[in-house]
Amino acid sequence: MTVFAAVQRTGGEAVLRSVEARRACRNGMASSTAGVANGFVQGNLAILPEKLAGAFHRFCQLNPKPCPIIGMSDVGDPRIPALGLDLDIRTDVPRYRVWRDGEVTDEPTDIMNHWRDDLVTFVLGCSFSFEEALLDEGLPIRHIEHNVRVPMYRTNIACSPSGPFEGPMVVSMRPFKPADAIRAVQITSRFPSVHGAPVHLGHPHSIGIKDVAKPDYGDPVPVADDEIPVFWACGVTPQAVIANAKLPFAITHAPGLMLVTDLRNRQLAVL
Amino acid sequence: MTVFAAVQRTGGEAVLRSVEARRACRNGMASSTAGVANGFVQGNLAILPEKLAGAFHRFCQLNPKPCPIIGMSDVGDPRIPALGLDLDIRTDVPRYRVWRDGEVTDEPTDIMNHWRDDLVTFVLGCSFSFEEALLDEGLPIRHIEHNVRVPMYRTNIACSPSGPFEGPMVVSMRPFKPADAIRAVQITSRFPSVHGAPVHLGHPHSIGIKDVAKPDYGDPVPVADDEIPVFWACGVTPQAVIANAKLPFAITHAPGLMLVTDLRNRQLAVL
Repeated sequence: MTVFAAVQRTGGEAVLRSVEARRACRNGMASSTAGVANGFVQGNLAILPEKLAGAFHRFCQLNPKPCPIIGMSDVGDPRIPALGLDLDIRTDVPRYRVWRDGEVTDEPTDIMNHWRDDLVTFVLGCSFSFEEALLDEGLPIRHIEHNVRVPMYRTNIACSPSGPFEGPMVVSMRPFKPADAIRAVQITSRFPSVHGAPVHLGHPHSIGIKDVAKPDYGDPVPVADDEIPVFWACGVTPQAVIANAKLPFAITHAPGLMLVTDLRNRQLAVL
Repeated sequence: MTVFAAVQRTGGEAVLRSVEARRACRNGMASSTAGVANGFVQGNLAILPEKLAGAFHRFCQLNPKPCPIIGMSDVGDPRIPALGLDLDIRTDVPRYRVWRDGEVTDEPTDIMNHWRDDLVTFVLGCSFSFEEALLDEGLPIRHIEHNVRVPMYRTNIACSPSGPFEGPMVVSMRPFKPADAIRAVQITSRFPSVHGAPVHLGHPHSIGIKDVAKPDYGDPVPVADDEIPVFWACGVTPQAVIANAKLPFAITHAPGLMLVTDLRNRQLAVL
């Protein structure tokens, strides 16, 4: 089926934006996907050899808040039709990270040369989806206002281990005034497949964060005296766990350069 | 219809507990209804002359979080069949407060001698219902553990005024560990007719509370360093507003001695 046939089948011009985003990636676009194809679900990527995929799948099952699976491929199949009829996971992400023995050895814009018949692809939900829902409800998001990356922190919350996959949950933080923090709990509870409700609020040290001004990933943002820092499970967790496992071979996306899918953020709402 | 016919119509033995509770009140029972007829909705009471009832009804409409209406009578009618077929509001609350010009002038166990043909009854939701839901989910409630009344505070959050009815929102406070506070937001969001989600958490001074250890009503409870104080709109608000309005005549329940209805707490869940 051609791209345009797929577009016509799934709703015409509006869907074109996600299809176009993937086509741009195929043609070499290699910048952040923040703000790209608004309204469409973006995903974190993990590609693993079949013999490790079972343990990783179970890790996601055991840790659904940081690792919510929104799509998965067959062994050796680069397609994930449920996320886009034309989608080819080897070309459609802006930039990849190729991991060997726990180190990033390549950051290519496609993985045609790295593809193998035993690879399994996992696409995991991403906070961009719930951030859209928060913005739609008029809640201000500090790191977006400041045009920086969301601050992220390693916590003392241990993920449930599976095979070689183990490590702490990584969380992202967004500060809110208390009434907005309550509203943010309600809004994000509707989206369990993109991290869902927060895992913590108010006492960073209780989850092992010494200083919210010094994130482990991303950029710091100010938290006012009358605000509450609210923490969500973060899709960086599986990437940190994959690095920690020092696997012989794995592929992920480069942070912030995500897979754009044809799913709509609003479709992920359970209510 | 007799009491027993009503019981048979609405489900037999289980319903008997609410009917029995009201019958006990009719026969002089005048103690707290905390823990009475578990599973059944209890309500705050406000009885006003018809010429003030319209403004009070509008006050409730404007301030649904502290004043959620779960039942209302016709003018001069002591019955509220939707809350109990046998219910007689003149006898079925353990203890009443009769207000004249803003002062409590009588605390009788029935209001047969105070009843008038122009009175309108409002029954407002009460936190007992959502506390049951919190306990059912395994969340600990501090004031119940300590066997004291919930701590309540006047805030700097102004209710929207209507006629003579105006004043600050009163809130109740329950401390939780952060993850439990998030869960408590989710659980109580399901129950908008019994105050719903919290109105605040974490920064008492932001809503005009100088010292959580000194509640304006009820009893203090300890808040641990790793806990968050969570604040819900409270049914004491309408009583405080009625007192503040210095109405020529009004009747409420005595605090903690509520109307027991035939509604089930679980029926109030919107999800």
